[in-house]
Amino acid sequence: MRRTGRLEALSDGVFGFAITLLVLDLVVPVTRQSEQHLIRALGDQWPGYLGYVVSFASIGALWLGHNAITEYLDHADTTLLRLNLLLLLLVAFLPFPTRLVAEYVHVTTAGAERVAVTFYGLTLLIAAALLSLFWRYALHARLVRLDAGDEEITLLTQRLTPGLGAYVLLIIVG
Amino acid sequence: MRRTGRLEALSDGVFGFAITLLVLDLVVPVTRQSEQHLIRALGDQWPGYLGYVVSFASIGALWLGHNAITEYLDHADTTLLRLNLLLLLLVAFLPFPTRLVAEYVHVTTAGAERVAVTFYGLTLLIAAALLSLFWRYALHARLVRLDAGDEEITLLTQRLTPGLGAYVLLIIVG
Amino acid sequence: MRRTGRLEALSDGVFGFAITLLVLDLVVPVTRQSEQHLIRALGDQWPGYLGYVVSFASIGALWLGHNAITEYLDHADTTLLRLNLLLLLLVAFLPFPTRLVAEYVHVTTAGAERVAVTFYGLTLLIAAALLSLFWRYALHARLVRLDAGDEEITLLTQRLTPGLGAYVLLIIVG
Amino acid sequence: MRRTGRLEALSDGVFGFAITLLVLDLVVPVTRQSEQHLIRALGDQWPGYLGYVVSFASIGALWLGHNAITEYLDHADTTLLRLNLLLLLLVAFLPFPTRLVAEYVHVTTAGAERVAVTFYGLTLLIAAALLSLFWRYALHARLVRLDAGDEEITLLTQRLTPGLGAYVLLIIVG
Repeated sequence: MRRTGRLEALSDGVFGFAITLLVLDLVVPVTRQSEQHLIRALGDQWPGYLGYVVSFASIGALWLGHNAITEYLDHADTTLLRLNLLLLLLVAFLPFPTRLVAEYVHVTTAGAERVAVTFYGLTLLIAAALLSLFWRYALHARLVRLDAGDEEITLLTQRLTPGLGAYVLLIIVG
Repeated sequence: MRRTGRLEALSDGVFGFAITLLVLDLVVPVTRQSEQHLIRALGDQWPGYLGYVVSFASIGALWLGHNAITEYLDHADTTLLRLNLLLLLLVAFLPFPTRLVAEYVHVTTAGAERVAVTFYGLTLLIAAALLSLFWRYALHARLVRLDAGDEEITLLTQRLTPGLGAYVLLIIVG
Repeated sequence: MRRTGRLEALSDGVFGFAITLLVLDLVVPVTRQSEQHLIRALGDQWPGYLGYVVSFASIGALWLGHNAITEYLDHADTTLLRLNLLLLLLVAFLPFPTRLVAEYVHVTTAGAERVAVTFYGLTLLIAAALLSLFWRYALHARLVRLDAGDEEITLLTQRLTPGLGAYVLLIIVG
Repeated sequence: MRRTGRLEALSDGVFGFAITLLVLDLVVPVTRQSEQHLIRALGDQWPGYLGYVVSFASIGALWLGHNAITEYLDHADTTLLRLNLLLLLLVAFLPFPTRLVAEYVHVTTAGAERVAVTFYGLTLLIAAALLSLFWRYALHARLVRLDAGDEEITLLTQRLTPGLGAYVLLIIVG
């Protein structure tokens, strides 16, 4: 039987690092420019800003789900810690496909853009599936607090599942 | 009803990461130089040091406000967690406009410098506004500890508000 | 007598940072490419993905062991904090030999590959040895909780030791 | 009156980030080399390894002192939080002078090396002085736990002070 404190601390560290990583990709226009050119140069970076916001939204959504789950955890076991590490592997990986989408979002050859979006969607899909698995395992191994109401648990299970369908749809459309 | 432990842990991770990020921009003069040249080369980097200190001061001030708020929180709800993520998005973004100011602070064409300072001020303004909103929402949704004195609460509300006016002024002057 | 809270927090920060660091090495193909070329360019990066996964697995395994140990700690002393810092030095260093292996894994001259793998194995071996030493010192200095069962303690001691033998073997084979 | 939890969490985040940052400076030899050349190329990086270890040791020593202080804190006030932010500014800055020393440690022109070492020593000196100030302020503002023994407090005050003398000596020698 393990306490959940360090599972949460490591997760918050990885989520926090991954969520802020994309700001490193935003480049300050180096050639000393005039007022007009600087404004335009900053504006031309919109795919970078978009990537930053999209990444923040996806990782933030996963964090909200993760946070909701740990609220119900009473304790952890080794398998849950391993599942959590697997989930964190995907979370920490997300900045890479996000950067890919930001790079290819305004490319005219629609094919390359589709590849980038599919790659991003697939990563997000696997991360969401692992989050759902994380929760189902905790339920199955009876790691959930005894005072948690059945309704709340069912609600959380549902909230974590439909995400899957949405992502599958998004990839097919993509 | 959510505990506030993970909200605080994620925030401290993001604040800590954002606050130290600018040290990466300081460049070691690579050409092996003589004593005199090295001292001058280190001195010429003053906009970098300034950017580092300014960024530390702004993010530190936001952290002090955030810390003051969480002292009064009894618990959190999903909306508060979302507002917190939005605030962190701005906090983690701050190193970028700071770098912009450091790059353009000694440019003779005053126009470009004004663009950089305005961009920085605007980011800080939105972050401060979100921090104020974060606190007001917590008050409105009755997430604050019951034993918190009315006077203390009014004082904190005031302390978080005038910042707005100051930033608006700074932008107009800028 | 020291509490173990900050030992755990610093460790989780360093583990979390080291575990996500390798995602920075994954490079987005910059030349705007067609669909086919982009897929191939992403595929050609497989040593990078491999390095990311391998690093995650090694650092994750060390974290699981570290977590298992801190579960049994009642309090810490200065020597234990120093041993922990030494262990973290190795953990934070691991991304470097991992990158080395990823760079040399597909090199035809088998000699260079062997150097890289041995360097990686050696780092992991020292880290595992330090983790084992960390646990043995805690036992020796009576820092372990009194309610911890003798069987559990023997089991953990064994689990942390055979790793050594495996690594020695791996290096000889390498 | 403030709890010390978030002061500790932010500090552990910044210490953990600063302590692992220098691993980013270690460069994997990119030209695919033969066995002999790779070993030599790795060996030639010794100033980088040295910088990594020295930085770890300095930041680790500051963390041990910081940890010893927070053990005795009962609560914090705003001034202590500000002093802590100032200390963290120096801690997060340390990787920069460390990199400077690593770059200039094997330069034949002794002058440049002296500049680098003095710059490093000065940063460490200010950080150690701030840590001592942090502790003295906590004592002065009666933020220390009431059950802390007078002897222990005197001992810690002494332990944090002589460091100053040592650094002053080191700079003069440097």
